[in-house]
Amino acid sequence: MTIEQKNAASEAAVKASLAKQAARKLGSLATAEKNRALEAMAASLIAETDSILEANALDLERGREAGTAPSLLDRLALNAERIAAIAQGVREVIALGDPVGRTVQTIQRPNGLHIEQVSVPLGVIGMIYEARPNVTVDAAALCLKTGNSVVLRGGSAALHTNRRVVEVLRGALQATAVPPEALQLIEDPSRASADAMLKLNGLLDVIIPRGGAALIRNVIENATVPVIETGAGICHTYVDAEADQAMAASIAVNAKAQRPSVCNSMETLLVHARYAERGLAPLAAALVEAGVELRGCDEARRLAGSTVEMASAGEADYATEYNDYILNIRVVDSLNEALDHISRYGTRHSECIVTPDADAAGRFLNEVDAAAVYHNASTRFTDGFEFGYGAEIGISTQKLHVRGPMGLPALTSTKYRIQGTGQIRG
Amino acid sequence: MTIEQKNAASEAAVKASLAKQAARKLGSLATAEKNRALEAMAASLIAETDSILEANALDLERGREAGTAPSLLDRLALNAERIAAIAQGVREVIALGDPVGRTVQTIQRPNGLHIEQVSVPLGVIGMIYEARPNVTVDAAALCLKTGNSVVLRGGSAALHTNRRVVEVLRGALQATAVPPEALQLIEDPSRASADAMLKLNGLLDVIIPRGGAALIRNVIENATVPVIETGAGICHTYVDAEADQAMAASIAVNAKAQRPSVCNSMETLLVHARYAERGLAPLAAALVEAGVELRGCDEARRLAGSTVEMASAGEADYATEYNDYILNIRVVDSLNEALDHISRYGTRHSECIVTPDADAAGRFLNEVDAAAVYHNASTRFTDGFEFGYGAEIGISTQKLHVRGPMGLPALTSTKYRIQGTGQIRG
Repeated sequence: MTIEQKNAASEAAVKASLAKQAARKLGSLATAEKNRALEAMAASLIAETDSILEANALDLERGREAGTAPSLLDRLALNAERIAAIAQGVREVIALGDPVGRTVQTIQRPNGLHIEQVSVPLGVIGMIYEARPNVTVDAAALCLKTGNSVVLRGGSAALHTNRRVVEVLRGALQATAVPPEALQLIEDPSRASADAMLKLNGLLDVIIPRGGAALIRNVIENATVPVIETGAGICHTYVDAEADQAMAASIAVNAKAQRPSVCNSMETLLVHARYAERGLAPLAAALVEAGVELRGCDEARRLAGSTVEMASAGEADYATEYNDYILNIRVVDSLNEALDHISRYGTRHSECIVTPDADAAGRFLNEVDAAAVYHNASTRFTDGFEFGYGAEIGISTQKLHVRGPMGLPALTSTKYRIQGTGQIRG
Repeated sequence: MTIEQKNAASEAAVKASLAKQAARKLGSLATAEKNRALEAMAASLIAETDSILEANALDLERGREAGTAPSLLDRLALNAERIAAIAQGVREVIALGDPVGRTVQTIQRPNGLHIEQVSVPLGVIGMIYEARPNVTVDAAALCLKTGNSVVLRGGSAALHTNRRVVEVLRGALQATAVPPEALQLIEDPSRASADAMLKLNGLLDVIIPRGGAALIRNVIENATVPVIETGAGICHTYVDAEADQAMAASIAVNAKAQRPSVCNSMETLLVHARYAERGLAPLAAALVEAGVELRGCDEARRLAGSTVEMASAGEADYATEYNDYILNIRVVDSLNEALDHISRYGTRHSECIVTPDADAAGRFLNEVDAAAVYHNASTRFTDGFEFGYGAEIGISTQKLHVRGPMGLPALTSTKYRIQGTGQIRG
């Protein structure tokens, strides 16, 4: 280990230990006490708007000096309105139900043991994310509401902002029942500090990465602490033989172009050959109209007609999450071929079939292995708010623990409380 | 990579791919079809008893030649009776309810979307375990019942037995709706084959290790596939100030000595100073009587009296899972000190308080962070059968996905099926 690595490891371990200590107290607080702490946090964010903007200005200045892209600077930038919106987000978390302390089941055993399974906080959550200061506050609010401590490790480009925001939030907690130590920020901006967090088994109960594919891959490949994988989305829309043309075009355009940068947007459109014969040309034209650059298989290029520009799509394209105004189109001969394509290239996030055929829809809904499978609706609905869950901490693309939009219950575990009268095992 | 590593990686990847293909079919089978397959498996195990025993004799002979310890040879050894018991275990899995296809919740959204969350198989489960052939059959039965394919990687000492057992089980599946490819055995006996499995993201959905601490640690440290951690148990029993002496002795002796080799047995007994003054000597004597070797803090050694042999216990002892007739005894001044000790040394498995004091019990049940927390009952009850769940695939000591005894629902995930009429996101 280099000295830098040692320092990074030491900061992460010390702060995670403090967070773990705090979690013991936090876990048994009443909902009202946690809500009062959240309200204090929201109020302090508003009251400290000026000092937060000062810190943010420092980050923005450094970013401009370093030649950071304008789109990234925009994500990093705060103003009074954005801070007010972030504070409002905290207040919305207050309004959500508390998933901790719920009795999941009770079991009365013949030997008299009374077993109660109850929901409990996970304990200490590690969040590794990029340079969006709103994530700092969102994550803090969602974790504290569910009785969890949180160790935050945001992008180094937002360090001054995050430091000030966490100071403000911890200051707000001073006068509440929530120990300020429940909220920890890793300030070492090196990659070593994130890597050190990944190995803190026994101190961190879970790590949730939020960010681009490289960040998530690094966490998956190096963490020994359990991870909730979020994010990657190669999503498909399959237009079946007899699909309605207006509906197919509407859903395809929405799934691709309503907000291409997000994980639940479509990357490849699969079209049944029979539909393609009559409907591919207008469908492709509608997508081009929406600003989408098309890549297609040979058959798709032929059927789209000479007026539509379509490059040739290959294996690598089908395996790419563009997150941009680019779309693959592939013509398939059957539902089976569509299912095979999705099984091969899909990332198990969100998949859609457009069809009036109930049997085809039924097979698609049953056989596609994904967090969310749609019949006649855009994949863009995979989202905590759209499902009615409220604020979400991410969208899980793994199958363990939670799958799909993660509402507050995703931040809980369970334990068994067993009451006896001296029972021993025979 | 060496050639051996390449071969191992290739076998694991090929077999996991076949398992994944099979999982697509398996996931949509009806319960009755899966149960018929399990019955065929049970019947074939009985019918093929002789050929399984022949294969087992080969493993035993090799083991004896290699100087394997008699206790390990005994775990490996089969006879007609043990095979019958294993087949009976498969039939017990038939009797359990099918956790797949259950509607977890339905959500009707204002925009008309109908969202249904249903339970689905995990997909492909990787099992890495040691030389107990019954695990091969148990794991196969539990995974197939829940619609999962399974890739088995048992200990090399049981290779001939496992190979024959899997041949028999796959043979039995030929005439059923369950594809034999759903059941895969890694035959490469090298460590490289287990290590290759750990990285099969996209082919394996989860890895469940079952075995000793070294096996589990290797999986945790090297897996990029999500893991369900099982096994490690440093469990405590805390005898409070006013505990009943007969109950304390009965529970302590049972928690330690009824079966010391298992994870839910006690490793450290914490005794309140006031109880210790009047009751430590007889308690220690009862444990010695049960064959337990004692190690204690200075105060425990003093109070146990000169007739009881007790070595000195230190940090390292408190952090050790003996899995043997050895126990640490520590005197604490308060419930808080007991809670601190458990927080520091416990592995969050099973913890117990013996007390008539409802307030102390309430605090212990709430504040101890463990899968199972007991008031006035032995920690030995942490077990799928004792909880009424039937056969279990292990006891989870992590907080994600499942905690405590893992019944069949632990082998499932969920997915959202969303029905629309053309909805798009605004």
